[in-house]
Amino acid sequence: MSILIKNAKILTQNLKREFLNGNILIEDDEIVEISKKSINTETDYKIDCKNKLILPGLINTHTHIPMTLLRGYSDDMILDKWLNDSIWPIESKLDKNSIEIGSKLGVLEMIASGTTTFLDMYFFEDTIGKVSKKIGIRAFLGFALIDNGTPEYSSNELIIKCENFVRRWKNNDLIKPAIAPHAVYTCGPELLKKTYDISNKYNTIIHTHCSETRNEVYEVKKKYGLRPIKQLEKYGLINDKMILAHCGWITKNEIQDITKHGAKISHCPISNMKIGSGGYAPIPEMIDSNIVVSLGTDGAASNNTLDMFETMKFCALIHKQHRWDPEILPSQSVLDFATIQGAKALKIDQYVGSIEVGKKADIIIIDLNKPHLTPKHDYVSHIVYAVKGSDVDTTIVNGKPIMLENKFLRLDEQKILDDAELCAKNLTSKL
Amino acid sequence: MSILIKNAKILTQNLKREFLNGNILIEDDEIVEISKKSINTETDYKIDCKNKLILPGLINTHTHIPMTLLRGYSDDMILDKWLNDSIWPIESKLDKNSIEIGSKLGVLEMIASGTTTFLDMYFFEDTIGKVSKKIGIRAFLGFALIDNGTPEYSSNELIIKCENFVRRWKNNDLIKPAIAPHAVYTCGPELLKKTYDISNKYNTIIHTHCSETRNEVYEVKKKYGLRPIKQLEKYGLINDKMILAHCGWITKNEIQDITKHGAKISHCPISNMKIGSGGYAPIPEMIDSNIVVSLGTDGAASNNTLDMFETMKFCALIHKQHRWDPEILPSQSVLDFATIQGAKALKIDQYVGSIEVGKKADIIIIDLNKPHLTPKHDYVSHIVYAVKGSDVDTTIVNGKPIMLENKFLRLDEQKILDDAELCAKNLTSKL
Repeated sequence: MSILIKNAKILTQNLKREFLNGNILIEDDEIVEISKKSINTETDYKIDCKNKLILPGLINTHTHIPMTLLRGYSDDMILDKWLNDSIWPIESKLDKNSIEIGSKLGVLEMIASGTTTFLDMYFFEDTIGKVSKKIGIRAFLGFALIDNGTPEYSSNELIIKCENFVRRWKNNDLIKPAIAPHAVYTCGPELLKKTYDISNKYNTIIHTHCSETRNEVYEVKKKYGLRPIKQLEKYGLINDKMILAHCGWITKNEIQDITKHGAKISHCPISNMKIGSGGYAPIPEMIDSNIVVSLGTDGAASNNTLDMFETMKFCALIHKQHRWDPEILPSQSVLDFATIQGAKALKIDQYVGSIEVGKKADIIIIDLNKPHLTPKHDYVSHIVYAVKGSDVDTTIVNGKPIMLENKFLRLDEQKILDDAELCAKNLTSKL
Repeated sequence: MSILIKNAKILTQNLKREFLNGNILIEDDEIVEISKKSINTETDYKIDCKNKLILPGLINTHTHIPMTLLRGYSDDMILDKWLNDSIWPIESKLDKNSIEIGSKLGVLEMIASGTTTFLDMYFFEDTIGKVSKKIGIRAFLGFALIDNGTPEYSSNELIIKCENFVRRWKNNDLIKPAIAPHAVYTCGPELLKKTYDISNKYNTIIHTHCSETRNEVYEVKKKYGLRPIKQLEKYGLINDKMILAHCGWITKNEIQDITKHGAKISHCPISNMKIGSGGYAPIPEMIDSNIVVSLGTDGAASNNTLDMFETMKFCALIHKQHRWDPEILPSQSVLDFATIQGAKALKIDQYVGSIEVGKKADIIIIDLNKPHLTPKHDYVSHIVYAVKGSDVDTTIVNGKPIMLENKFLRLDEQKILDDAELCAKNLTSKL
């Protein structure tokens, strides 16, 4: 397949962060030419981008995709009560069928709002993988490990199922397996050791919730005598394959540990704010320490959308407010988090995260011809402070257009929405 | 003109906060019938609202509409430097023509994102009024008073021009004059006295920036020996016609003063965060004290949109984060701020702010048939946490549809966007 993107304003996100007016030629999965001069060649698709802005596809490094089914199901509750009384009871009713429906809804929402790669953490990840593969999004499937087992597997079969899962997906092209011990307070030493072994054997990404709330840090320290980062470090899990979600309650010493071992961060400002976790991930200090920071929406139940543009705006603003400093985290840094830094976190920056010749064609197109995007003084400012997910009109993953000028190709959007509505009703009626 | 809204899910925002499935009949400017049974009558417009949600139009109580022209012009700067080096120099180039273009852009953006009433504060308010009247939005025009004069009037003619302005607009239907002394640090005692006199004589809304930054409170105290609220109170300006914007640096004693005199608040969370003002308006304490709290976007230069849905989400989340308490400001309270409380702030709640028989028809329609709004567990949650301005497909003000199913009636949207683009380019080239 070939695509010609014409007359484009391109935020390349390359090393020089170049902005170009030009044309992009995609052949198969690859960007083969970027030129200021017009490119004359026959292609399967020609997209004229007058008054449109071209960006690398966004990368969401922390989410739980099927939780789209629980969007708005319960809000404004204390974390423990929310999990125990609301989320976990309904999650225990989830099965393959509902996970499939929720995953389709989640992937649809991500494609519609310009996300081309995501790192998930949930159960029934085989189902999430199949849905993602069929639709054609780039996914890292975090197989959740929890001492007590998951709605899919009991605790005593979890490790063997995890290793089989990793074997099944490790040679896939767009879909990669990851290992996701839920958190230090739900995963004891044995599970952490096994996580290390499998991730080491198969060279997979590792993903965990870390230091999300003050209470978690307190409980872990009480139980193990160590703060969460040190507890993970003890089992070799603070390493360059680890992506730590949240990190709202991290000390300067912990920043040093993360830096030393090259672990990465998935910052989830909206979820942290909504849950009232209190902590402010010390992102400016992490940047100073050259830690790779990326962005996550978290699940739709604690956000309540998967819109990475919204997450960028919250990220840019929360630290300004907290530090009384509007110069903290300028818009370019935040755009980096959602693109090239996300790719670095997932160790795929050699082929996605920016628009460059030789890279995979993960590209989104934003329609700028709207009141809230007029006038156009500064494109990077617009991306972080004014663009919404709904301004994305085209999403291309690995050279394939999945949404083209607001139309989904090869996807029955209405059926996915209807199925999700019905499924959510059935789920709540079971309680 | 008559409109029948059929098969609607209606968040009435009436006293009982009733949710209804039903039909709404509008005749001329008024809601004449709300019924669960179908209404059979001939009307000019029939809007079928299957899978759509009906809300009262949103009320934005603090903005500077023509600043849409400066959207993204300069961000991420310290307030003083931003105003002195960036905003004020370009504002000094504004004239009637550019204000007209910027106002059209701003009103277009508001209508497109579901705002039906706004309180402005700027100069050339006659022009803003003419644009608003022509398009048909409900507006309160805050005539800005500043000791040093404005780009429109010199300091010695300001008061007489202000009184003439109030006389010109006071008998208008949708457009009302307001008096807007910029802030205590830019308006000395003489101007505050005159503000009191004119507002008292003509019974107008008064609007001012108050306690936005810590430095402002410090400077006012140094100059006048009083904090801003006390300084305003000294001249009779803490009263039930006053809407105080920001109030990030307010003490418990000041909350008492505001309560005692019945002044209102316009909370602007996004602007406060973006400028890094530091303070957190003590909204939960204001609510406990029965102060009327409403929401403002502030100007597009410090936001950078006029999307009140986005402002609701920021409002709901910032206080949860600050207080470590997810139960603070539940979604229903925040929706109230943007609708009926906004109407109370402007003293127009007897005829707008909720959907009730006998009230004016200021109504918006939201298309729920979208991935990020599926499934529908809770409509109020969706409004605050998931809906975006771009999900509004119809905006009716005073019984007249201005945007109908995403099409603007009687407005050349493309010309407004093109004019604004050109005007912004000309403005920056003059510097």
